[in-house]
Order: sequence, then structure tokens, then C-alpha cells
Amino acid sequence: MEYRKIKDEDNDGGTLSNDIENLRGIGFSGVASVSNVPPREQAKWKRKTVVTVALTFLTSSQAILIVWSKRAGKYEYSVTTANFLVETLKCALSLAALARIWKSEGVTEDNRLSTTLDEVIVYPIPALLYLVKNLLQYYIFAYVDAPGYQILKNLNIISTGVLYRIILKKKLSDIQWAAFILLCAGCTTAQLNSRSDHVLQTSLPGWIMAIVMALLSGFAGVYTEAIIKKRPSRNINVQNFWLYISGMAFNAIAILIQDFDAVMNKGFFHGYSIITTLMILNHALSGIAVSMVMKYADNIVKVYSTSVAMLLTAVVSVFLFGFNLTLAFFLGATVVSVSVYLHSAGKLQR
Amino acid sequence: MEYRKIKDEDNDGGTLSNDIENLRGIGFSGVASVSNVPPREQAKWKRKTVVTVALTFLTSSQAILIVWSKRAGKYEYSVTTANFLVETLKCALSLAALARIWKSEGVTEDNRLSTTLDEVIVYPIPALLYLVKNLLQYYIFAYVDAPGYQILKNLNIISTGVLYRIILKKKLSDIQWAAFILLCAGCTTAQLNSRSDHVLQTSLPGWIMAIVMALLSGFAGVYTEAIIKKRPSRNINVQNFWLYISGMAFNAIAILIQDFDAVMNKGFFHGYSIITTLMILNHALSGIAVSMVMKYADNIVKVYSTSVAMLLTAVVSVFLFGFNLTLAFFLGATVVSVSVYLHSAGKLQR
Repeated sequence: MEYRKIKDEDNDGGTLSNDIENLRGIGFSGVASVSNVPPREQAKWKRKTVVTVALTFLTSSQAILIVWSKRAGKYEYSVTTANFLVETLKCALSLAALARIWKSEGVTEDNRLSTTLDEVIVYPIPALLYLVKNLLQYYIFAYVDAPGYQILKNLNIISTGVLYRIILKKKLSDIQWAAFILLCAGCTTAQLNSRSDHVLQTSLPGWIMAIVMALLSGFAGVYTEAIIKKRPSRNINVQNFWLYISGMAFNAIAILIQDFDAVMNKGFFHGYSIITTLMILNHALSGIAVSMVMKYADNIVKVYSTSVAMLLTAVVSVFLFGFNLTLAFFLGATVVSVSVYLHSAGKLQR
Repeated sequence: MEYRKIKDEDNDGGTLSNDIENLRGIGFSGVASVSNVPPREQAKWKRKTVVTVALTFLTSSQAILIVWSKRAGKYEYSVTTANFLVETLKCALSLAALARIWKSEGVTEDNRLSTTLDEVIVYPIPALLYLVKNLLQYYIFAYVDAPGYQILKNLNIISTGVLYRIILKKKLSDIQWAAFILLCAGCTTAQLNSRSDHVLQTSLPGWIMAIVMALLSGFAGVYTEAIIKKRPSRNINVQNFWLYISGMAFNAIAILIQDFDAVMNKGFFHGYSIITTLMILNHALSGIAVSMVMKYADNIVKVYSTSVAMLLTAVVSVFLFGFNLTLAFFLGATVVSVSVYLHSAGKLQR
């Protein structure tokens, strides 16, 4: 539960301050290049690759931290306080990155923190959507068990693709659509276990809730991309700052509603351990990586990235925790790999 | 065991005499057409579709007959006699079709039965390959259990693709290769059950045997196509006649070696039932359909056709026998469907 709750929050953004500096350096100073691709295009591609790889490894290590924390035993910390700290850390990192930029470039129209109501009014919407989704999450377990929910969560892949098409009006080629269906089927196959068939007995209300949750999650992701991309020249750290301020506000409300007594009696940091701290750090950095992917790539890349992370996690868990890989995992991993190939092969023939 | 033994024999050819007549009619009289595709091309496409659909339904009903016969209890007939009868029936049907053609068109260079040693010497090779493969089949069960063998048989898909490329020197596009890998992964996924993971514990000799058997089976299929396509104008019924004569000879030897005593003591037709008869009829027609697919399409089409048949069988079994479909089946069926789509989408961009 902790995992899911924290994880669903991290779909906003942030700032890997050093990385940004480097990337901006590459992007705007036009580093000399041996290939005949224009340096500007090459820098864009490089930046996209760096943020995607960062997201993949952060997501993957996130899952490994969760397995590790489960093995180490339950920690009785308040999930809401951890979520609040994740948002606060992201906010702090965004401000730190901005401070460096102001120092080197001065305050400009694009990197100033002050904003208009017109710009800022939409920022709380993704955080609100995640909040509604997290509330629904408590009720879906009346209809589906936890492993079943893990399976149903793969519907997010399809909903993201559909909403990406409808809301952002971006086209995927037919081959890329086929690849996207395969990604969903492959991820689900890789997660199959002996109890997965239970999910077929899910009742109609259970299915409806799962689909609504997938749509909320997909909509939140696509809407975040829309907000960030609406002002391409606006500095990502400013955009992240406003996103995370909303996140902090919603999580503060969640602390008051859910964990007020625990925090009052046992303290804000009760039950925190080294793993909790690492998880908060990881979630903050992952959230920032998600924002970067939204800015420099898109939701489709994000979905591929987190899917590949899921496979990486399983492989790493074999070495770290002695997990066994199933035949279903190998088959699912094969299908996901082919899907990644088809997504890029499908691009060429547009 | 009966199933597998009969099934592995049916990779040769035959003649659906009425169908041929119709198809020849379409192919050579040039039926008027509304589309702007040349009538000849249209007829070729139609013929290819008819034989592919026929193969799909015959293979699918084959599997259903096997389930039916298993449910009805064990029949103690000799598998070798059944195989011999299948070959004999295919031979008889080829001759009957030839007789009709001779009557209407007269005996020509292309449809005469007499042949040269040069033409006929290669015909026993596929039958011999299947014989070796069937012999190996007895030994592989020392290393793999029956459900594991069903899973490993999907290696045939990959071996057929590779040998098709190497021996027939025909190219598949990159997308079509991706589709072929997906076909293999999808078929295996659809067959997953709680005991499938055992197959990962297969020892090295087991894997080697499975790969050798896949190569033998793939080679036999591809070699049959090479023989049939080497003389495109030669009548398919003549080619089938010589293929099946070889099959009859090898199966006669198999009766002498394996079931001589049983046939002598209990008679050739001991243990035959209505289901046995239907199965023999079905195998003969399927064998003929395979030959037609080799002549008018290729091994790749054959593999797709039999894979789709496997899915159809499972769906029909739900209605006929009350089988339950698993989540793995739905996922595998999705992957196979996307693969079929990609195979034809991949063709366009060659």
C-alpha cells in the first residue's frame, strides 16, 4: 500500500539541478559534433535519452527499495507525511536549480517565479486527479485483490495511449498502436502468476472502477504534459515549482484528514528509517525525471520507460533477493522488447 | 501420443478435388472482376485465401476431434495403421483429382503421372525427416513431460522462419520478423498453465533434442515447399501423389517394425471407431490443405494458419467441452492477433 500511494503521487515533475545545467549547456551552447545531424537536434535527442534512462533506472530502483523495505519488515511511518516530504523535496530542488539559473543568466520572462492566474490555475488539476484516484484505490480492494489490481493497473497503458491521442491530438502510426497493445499485453504476461486468473472473475463494478482509475491516471499524466508543453520556452523548474506546490497543499490536507492523530501523538517522523529516507529521495528524483520526460519527450516514452523498469526490477531481484523468473516473465519480456523495437521502427514510416 | 504421431505426418500434401477444380476454374478462365486488380492476381489471392482458411479450419477441427476422442476414452487401435491409411487416402484423392483433370484436359507434360528419377528422387526426403523426428519423440519424453513438450514445440515457429530464410532465400521484412517472434511468444503464452514453469528446468540434452526436433520439422516443411515450388507448372496432384507414395512406404515399414504382432493377432482395423475414421479423414484433408498452402502460399502462411487454428480450437472447446479460458490465453491470443496484423502490415513497406 505504501508503495502504491507514494508511487501514484510521483507523476508530477522536478529538477535534477546538475543534470539540467549540463543539458542546458548541451542544448544551447551547441557542442561540436562529428555526425551530420544538426547539433541542436542531436542535443535534443541526447537530452531526451538522458531523462528517459534516468526515469527507467529511478523507477526500477524504486521498486527494488520497496521489496527491500518489505523484507526488512513493516515500518509504521505515516504514508501521508512521506508523500508530503517527497513534494517538499521536489519543490526545494526546483528552487535550488532556479537559484543557480538566476545567478548565471539573470531573471528573465521565462525563468521568473511570479506568474499569472491564467498560467497557474491549471497546475492543481493533475494533483487533484491523483487524489481522486488514490481515494478510489481504497474502494477497489472490495472488488479485486492486490495481485489482481497489479494486473488491472496495466490498463493505464491503454488509457494513456488513447487520451494522449484524444487530448494532445498527437498521432501514433498503426505500427505504434500495435506496439502499444503489445506493451500492455507483454507487461501483463510478465506479471502472471498462478493466481492471476482470479482477475477474470472481477465483477462489473470492479471493472468499471479499474477503468475509471486507469482513465484518471492516464488523464493526469496527459494533462501534466499538456500544461508543461503549453509554454515550451518557460523554464521547467518554474513549471515544476507550481506543480509541486499544489502537491504539497493536497498532501498537507491528507495529513490532516488521515494521520493527524498519529502525527500529533507520535511525531511527524515516527517510524522513519534509512529505507524510508532513501525511498523519499528516490520518489522525489523519479518525480523530477517524470517531469523532464513530459517536457522533453512525452507520455508514451514515460510508459515505455516505466514498463522496461518493471522488467529490469524483476531481473535485478533475481540477483539481489534470489527471486525466480517464470516462463511467463520471459515471454512477457520478449513481447515488451519487440514492442519497444516496433515503436521506433513504426516511427520511420510515418 | 496418437495425436502427435498422426499430426506430424500430415505435413505433406494432397488434393481437395472439387476445390482444385473450382480454383483452377478461377485461376485460368479469368472470372470478370469489379476491382482494378488484374483478374489473374485476384484469382491467385482468392486461391491462397481459400486454402489457408481450409487449413485453419481443418487443423482446428483436428484438435477438437482429439479432445473428443480423449473424452470418449482410449481406443486401442494401432497408430501406424491409421497413419498408413491417412497416406493411402491422400494418394487416392490425388489420383481421383488427376483422373478428372485428364478427362477434361487430356494428359499433358504437366499433369502426367510418369516422371524422371531427377524429379522423383527428392520426394521421400520430407517423409524421412518426419520419421527421424517421430523416432526422437519417443526419447525426448525422458527429459521433458508432455505439457513441457507442447510448450517446446513452439520452437518450430522460429526454426521454420529461419530455415525459410536460409533455404528458400525468401526475405521477411524487419516488421515481419518481429511479428514472427511475437507469434512464437503469443502461442506459448496462450498455452501457459500452472505447470509450464517446469520447462525452464529442462536439462541441456532435453533442450538440444527439442531444438533438433524443431529444426527437423522446420526443415521438412521448408523442403516440401522447395520440392513443390521447384516446378511451378507441374500439377499439384502429381506432386502430391509422389509425396504420399513415399509416406505410404515409410508407414508400411513402421507397421512392420512396431505393430506387426498386433495387426497379425487382432487385425488391421482393430480398435477402430467412428472417431478414428473421422480423424483419419480429417488428417488426410488437412494434409492436402498443407500441400495446397505450400504450393499457392508458403510455410510462413502455414505457421500462421495452424497457430490461429490453435486459438480457434481453444475458443470452440469452451462451448463444446466447457473448458475455461485463462488470462494467459487472452494475452497470448492478443499477441498472436497483433502478430497476424503486423505480418501483413509489414509486407506493405517492403
